[in-house]
Amino acid sequence: MLLLMLFIATAISAQTITGFSANSAAAQIKTEQQFDAALNAQHIGSTIKQLSAFPHNLGSKGSKAVADSILNRFKSYGFDAHLEKYTVLFPTPKTRVLEMTAPTTYKALLKEPALKEDATSGQAGQLPPYNAWSADGDVTAPLVFVNYGLPSDYEKLAEIGIDVKGKIVIAKYGRSWRGIKPKVAQEHGAVGCIIYSDPGDDGYARGDVYPKGAFKNEYGVQRGSVMDMPIYPGDPLTPNIGADSAAVRIKREDAINLLKIPVLPVSYHDAKPLLESLEGQVVPAGWQGGLPFTYHIGDDKTKVHLKLEFNWDMVPCYDVVATIKGSTFPDEWVLRGNHHDAWVNGAGDPISGQAAMLEEAKAIGELLKTGWKPKRTIVYCAWDGEEPALLGSTEFAEEHAKELQQKAIIYINSDGNGRGFLGAGGSHALQPLMDEISKTVIDPQTKVSVFERWKANRASNASSTKAKENALNTTKLELSALGSGSDYSPFLQHLGLPALDLGFGGEDPGGEYHSTYDSYDDYRRFKDPTFEYGVALAQVAGRAVLRMADAEVLPFDFTNLYSTANGYASELMSTTNDMRDATVVENELLNKNIYKLASDPTKTYIQPMPKDEVPYLDFSPLQNALVAFKKSTDSLSVLLKKKDDAMADKNLNLALAHAEQQLLFADGLPRRSWYKHSLYAPGFYTGYGVKTLPGIREAIEQRNWKEAQQEINLTAQAIDRLATYLTKVF
Amino acid sequence: MLLLMLFIATAISAQTITGFSANSAAAQIKTEQQFDAALNAQHIGSTIKQLSAFPHNLGSKGSKAVADSILNRFKSYGFDAHLEKYTVLFPTPKTRVLEMTAPTTYKALLKEPALKEDATSGQAGQLPPYNAWSADGDVTAPLVFVNYGLPSDYEKLAEIGIDVKGKIVIAKYGRSWRGIKPKVAQEHGAVGCIIYSDPGDDGYARGDVYPKGAFKNEYGVQRGSVMDMPIYPGDPLTPNIGADSAAVRIKREDAINLLKIPVLPVSYHDAKPLLESLEGQVVPAGWQGGLPFTYHIGDDKTKVHLKLEFNWDMVPCYDVVATIKGSTFPDEWVLRGNHHDAWVNGAGDPISGQAAMLEEAKAIGELLKTGWKPKRTIVYCAWDGEEPALLGSTEFAEEHAKELQQKAIIYINSDGNGRGFLGAGGSHALQPLMDEISKTVIDPQTKVSVFERWKANRASNASSTKAKENALNTTKLELSALGSGSDYSPFLQHLGLPALDLGFGGEDPGGEYHSTYDSYDDYRRFKDPTFEYGVALAQVAGRAVLRMADAEVLPFDFTNLYSTANGYASELMSTTNDMRDATVVENELLNKNIYKLASDPTKTYIQPMPKDEVPYLDFSPLQNALVAFKKSTDSLSVLLKKKDDAMADKNLNLALAHAEQQLLFADGLPRRSWYKHSLYAPGFYTGYGVKTLPGIREAIEQRNWKEAQQEINLTAQAIDRLATYLTKVF
Repeated sequence: MLLLMLFIATAISAQTITGFSANSAAAQIKTEQQFDAALNAQHIGSTIKQLSAFPHNLGSKGSKAVADSILNRFKSYGFDAHLEKYTVLFPTPKTRVLEMTAPTTYKALLKEPALKEDATSGQAGQLPPYNAWSADGDVTAPLVFVNYGLPSDYEKLAEIGIDVKGKIVIAKYGRSWRGIKPKVAQEHGAVGCIIYSDPGDDGYARGDVYPKGAFKNEYGVQRGSVMDMPIYPGDPLTPNIGADSAAVRIKREDAINLLKIPVLPVSYHDAKPLLESLEGQVVPAGWQGGLPFTYHIGDDKTKVHLKLEFNWDMVPCYDVVATIKGSTFPDEWVLRGNHHDAWVNGAGDPISGQAAMLEEAKAIGELLKTGWKPKRTIVYCAWDGEEPALLGSTEFAEEHAKELQQKAIIYINSDGNGRGFLGAGGSHALQPLMDEISKTVIDPQTKVSVFERWKANRASNASSTKAKENALNTTKLELSALGSGSDYSPFLQHLGLPALDLGFGGEDPGGEYHSTYDSYDDYRRFKDPTFEYGVALAQVAGRAVLRMADAEVLPFDFTNLYSTANGYASELMSTTNDMRDATVVENELLNKNIYKLASDPTKTYIQPMPKDEVPYLDFSPLQNALVAFKKSTDSLSVLLKKKDDAMADKNLNLALAHAEQQLLFADGLPRRSWYKHSLYAPGFYTGYGVKTLPGIREAIEQRNWKEAQQEINLTAQAIDRLATYLTKVF
Repeated sequence: MLLLMLFIATAISAQTITGFSANSAAAQIKTEQQFDAALNAQHIGSTIKQLSAFPHNLGSKGSKAVADSILNRFKSYGFDAHLEKYTVLFPTPKTRVLEMTAPTTYKALLKEPALKEDATSGQAGQLPPYNAWSADGDVTAPLVFVNYGLPSDYEKLAEIGIDVKGKIVIAKYGRSWRGIKPKVAQEHGAVGCIIYSDPGDDGYARGDVYPKGAFKNEYGVQRGSVMDMPIYPGDPLTPNIGADSAAVRIKREDAINLLKIPVLPVSYHDAKPLLESLEGQVVPAGWQGGLPFTYHIGDDKTKVHLKLEFNWDMVPCYDVVATIKGSTFPDEWVLRGNHHDAWVNGAGDPISGQAAMLEEAKAIGELLKTGWKPKRTIVYCAWDGEEPALLGSTEFAEEHAKELQQKAIIYINSDGNGRGFLGAGGSHALQPLMDEISKTVIDPQTKVSVFERWKANRASNASSTKAKENALNTTKLELSALGSGSDYSPFLQHLGLPALDLGFGGEDPGGEYHSTYDSYDDYRRFKDPTFEYGVALAQVAGRAVLRMADAEVLPFDFTNLYSTANGYASELMSTTNDMRDATVVENELLNKNIYKLASDPTKTYIQPMPKDEVPYLDFSPLQNALVAFKKSTDSLSVLLKKKDDAMADKNLNLALAHAEQQLLFADGLPRRSWYKHSLYAPGFYTGYGVKTLPGIREAIEQRNWKEAQQEINLTAQAIDRLATYLTKVF
């Protein structure tokens, strides 16, 4: 084994590293080997156990204790660390009642029982199942099943003559971020929303249930935020500014990202009697779930009473900020973060990522002891309040916006971590950095590089011969585009900082997410039993930190950013053309009453109205901007190649790091000005899922042609701005 | 309404009919109007009620009573009718035991209880649930879940290290014809096979269960044959010859289409405790069914005892044959058939089709009273023993093979019928006939032609814009190709007679198939409550009978047959190329250990061996034959156009009718010489599903390249034979 490791080490040391001269690359590789040697899987395991030993949601004693523990760790590793406190609104449940009142009665348990196989599952002080940012409410109304509660589900309901106005809807978890479900329900006039985990998606149909297996048992409930974060995340009372003590807060009722209706998540144990009671039409094809009876839409006879009251408290939010000052460029910051707050005990989410990050910090501490110092300042951040609304990271980003936009050269995020394949998303100028790193980190189980394993997974899952061939021919790791759902969002999408989100997974499926069973006992059985993927994450993210901290020329590759953006534009133009063709044909079907004619006359079918046709949009500003972008990146590449073997000047590196900020819209995206990035945003009607070229794409999806043209022009201006900027970085 | 009908009648009378001169077309339309006027939905309903009033499986008293009742009806309508008796082997259950013996015990009910909502469900004399042609057996062995029991399921099992040798397998109904499941299980060394209806496919996940709704309740069982009919159907003791009293019978143990292992169908009530008891690996993705627990493959701890004994009796098989002699061409026969035997009461299958056929005969009787006589002989056949093995039709076809090949010009089949859309399959030379007919029959619910409704259904179900556009632009009804599963098989695939299979459905889903609940009470609630689709079927099939009986030039369109065959050939060549590309890429993945590398190291994964590469086959003989075919059909079309307005000579029509026989292989398909048609056959490993160009296609699918080339050559010879033949029909 030692011999093998030596062999690998030798193989690795022959590598070049983009942004490093040959000499400094050799030194860097040595540093990384020392870094690796200081990582310890068992220590990661013990960190996970310690930090998930008690509940530690935002505002709880546990959260402060975890923050303090992390603070002390950073300090012990040699970091200059402090707590940064914000004061934020955070609702916790005061009253939770869900009961069926007709045709029979059932009172929902709303409780996850303690299990003897799960040591922390019965602890006092756990937040019970609820959706944070639900409105207070006390409603009794007929229940309607709305499938996943997506806009397309309501279109289907309209076709079969169902209106949810004045009703309480019950929707399955899944297919969208949860916050979309009550938002769309509210838009359709529903007075309440229940979200449940269907065993077909998240329960026994996936595998053995906890504690026998990893999947959701009948009592498990997914907690989670339903703030309309696609409008803005963070403290709803302090949009765009840090929630410090001096902040001027808006009124809660003026916060446009808060719901007006009550929302409650329930287990399939609690959903079952309600769903089983529903009568009326049998659900449309594809809506049936995994419970053992026929699902129905509801016919007003099943009534439920939903009463929710919350403590709308202002609570402290403790970010831990830990710094190693850069020896050469102290005002160039490498930011690395992972949240520390959990819905309950959160062994997986977020502690598995937090523990890997702390292991990185520990290893950096070891490096410091050898006399090594980073050229640039390294800032490790453990965020509080991610679960309710990315609170800690957003308030930090808003509070320090100007300084971050001047000094931060990257934000590297992680969150929950597990066994499996590398998942890497982020700014596409950083793709080559991550590609190189992924080829130097060894997969713990198979002993090939994490790149090779990523590639094998992709090839084996490709559905067509062509896709398999492409996957086999892939020589570079590809970054996914980032939507939202973790703390990179404020840095990337609000501030325009180059960002990464890193983690392992895919061989760790389960149903513990945001439940009381996301525990150490669950984690060590089903997620990463040897904690070696914690080491792998620390190696991947740690290398990103170390390389960004010490590179002579920061490894931003705008050629890759160009080709990615160009791909998005081509795909969007082609999507628009497909949509135009589809609209013509679809309208012909509607105008000829084809759907009506094909429908079963014994069932209600209300044929939808034809849609307005898709005009030809003028994409030429975008296309011309992309041509200019290509020219400028081509020229820049030539110039940067010459720089490769010499320490770059300070101005060049900061200029490169600031390039992505050129892509920000001054006024943000329509109806959500907080989101400013022209390439990446979470979906307005999908949530966490990314929309690339979001201004244009969402206008087209919403058939707002005027806005689509405006957004094409604005996006073209942003890309033009970047193109011009890049010609001037030297 | 009367005015509307008059309007429709006028509109229809303006039509031309292929094969009829203008004058005779006008007369034909008048005949068809009189025919239509004699059809009565309520009478169809009462026929269904009467003929499904008691159990009438092959060999039962009920079957003889139904045959006699049908005989008397034909006689009363003015047909010259008789019973034609064959003596056939037919196993019925003597002992049926299924019990779990470990780790707990459960004794399967194997019984469908009587329901007060279903008047006939508790009747004495019903065949209990079983699979006919199961072997006798008494086995106790570990149980293994094999998904649908398809060849691909066993490939998956091999990958996860599961061997079924010496085990009893349990498979879901569906995805293949049932007989494939024990056949493939036996090939893999299983000693017994249980087939069950999973509620995910055929139960509560589809809709409300019987008697509340139409879908399968927990006790319902699908009976059915598991003879290996893709080898040959009919009496297993008399392949290729009629099972008359003089027939020389082979020994039962020499019948290669009979299984060696016991097979039993069960309800999901009986399957549940067995499946719930299984442990071992969780099933692969996509294998989970609709029962409310996690499905497992089995780990040898769950043992079942399956004991089956059958009465292997020789029983009488009563076909009813009813004739109206042709006035002009008595030796040109139009055959029309539908079986009369049922597994239990069979209101839907086969009585709904039988009742529509009898209604046609009644209407023809009314026509006879007006002095009308068919030019050609019309032969109505009510087959016995379809359910066990297409017995009545196969023995009839074998017994009268020579005469049928000389005199029969068409065989028109139907079987169960219900509410919805026209389904029409058959010889593609008959497509224009059915296209014209489909435009003259009015859909009972929507009052457009059944063609328009068929087209609307197709367009509304098309998945892509292109497919929707194509569906919208469709101007002709398309016939599907016929596999097997009803009585057309011996006429089409053994004798080469032009054949059709007709019926309505698609708005009548349910779980009654081959169960005791396929009753009149079920039918009138869920299948065709007004019996108007019985009228529609009588109109469609009746027109086909009347037009074939009276056409001056028989409406065979070989141009359409050519273009269909040419389409199959193109598709097959393209499939072979895709298979070649896929094999290269798949082998590269295997040789590079990609699947192994992507697999979860904590689970068993045995990577399959690479497959042999797909050679380039010489399709040129087939392509050249198709060119010759096109030339001959083009010339024939020109000649036939001139014939359109004059009574054709007798030889021409018989010559046209015999054309399809040119497509027969003298020696049949490999390993199943009974099947002789070069264009259509049921799948050797799929069952009822059709394989077009079966000799070539199945050799390619089985990667038997030598045989594929032989079959290309043989198929080319068959098509060449037809091409040459068509140049000589004048």
